[in-house]
Amino acid sequence: MISERMEDMLVSDLDSLIKPANEVAVVGAHNTLDHALLLMTSNKYSVVPVIDEKSRVKGLISMPLIMEAIIGIEDVQFDQLGDITVEEVMNTDYPVVKMDYELEDVLRTLIHNAFISVIDEEGVLTGIITRQVILTGLNRIVHNFEQVYEVKDRNREHV
Amino acid sequence: MISERMEDMLVSDLDSLIKPANEVAVVGAHNTLDHALLLMTSNKYSVVPVIDEKSRVKGLISMPLIMEAIIGIEDVQFDQLGDITVEEVMNTDYPVVKMDYELEDVLRTLIHNAFISVIDEEGVLTGIITRQVILTGLNRIVHNFEQVYEVKDRNREHV
Repeated sequence: MISERMEDMLVSDLDSLIKPANEVAVVGAHNTLDHALLLMTSNKYSVVPVIDEKSRVKGLISMPLIMEAIIGIEDVQFDQLGDITVEEVMNTDYPVVKMDYELEDVLRTLIHNAFISVIDEEGVLTGIITRQVILTGLNRIVHNFEQVYEVKDRNREHV
Repeated sequence: MISERMEDMLVSDLDSLIKPANEVAVVGAHNTLDHALLLMTSNKYSVVPVIDEKSRVKGLISMPLIMEAIIGIEDVQFDQLGDITVEEVMNTDYPVVKMDYELEDVLRTLIHNAFISVIDEEGVLTGIITRQVILTGLNRIVHNFEQVYEVKDRNREHV
């Protein structure tokens, strides 16, 4: 359990953690890898969510995954980028939470993932939660928590 | 200022935050982009430190930066990957700290950077500090701080 004081200082309200879907770079599952690579380059992201035609999250695609797909035995086959679709290559084991998520789950998941996709009941991408916004909250806690609250060592009470 | 209690719980000692250089994927400044791309693909990193022949940090190279360098007006010129060196393309505005760093500076910098390079007096890469290790410490704080310490609202004291 995360204490209420910690949660409140980490984030004013849970919705504010979410970067809304209209500000998130995404690629379509049916797009080819050359399209994905150009989109990611122009947005300077190396990993983005993959969505289907109904904006439902289907996976994650990253530049290393794209490169891996075209590395042959002898050389890198860049000419194949237009022949392979994102859904053939994407990672389908991706972290996701619903809108009514627990902060605890998000914090644990972000240790090993750059971001978490937030979806609605139909699986449609609502937004993402990034490490950046959580680290902003951490800075608030380490600087302000002992200003706002009185903190004592428990064992000193018994001395 | 970060309180001693917060710092102690975030990290047992400052050295333990650092992932040592021999475990960090790096590319040489004089390497060509095709070499860098293969190395990053095999390590599944999309951004890594760039070092010179004396292991001094010179910049950061990322997959989006590599792609940007070969995107022409009409198409992507993959055949140029072997002609361009990493130092021509790398980002030279990268975060770095010395071994005697302040945790405060690291936490602030990691809001906007995936990792920070740690260097010695000669500029040689000692290791990196990642968001992952900091988020592990954050999980410890939000779960354990109020178990270990007695926390009271300051304003209640005056009621």
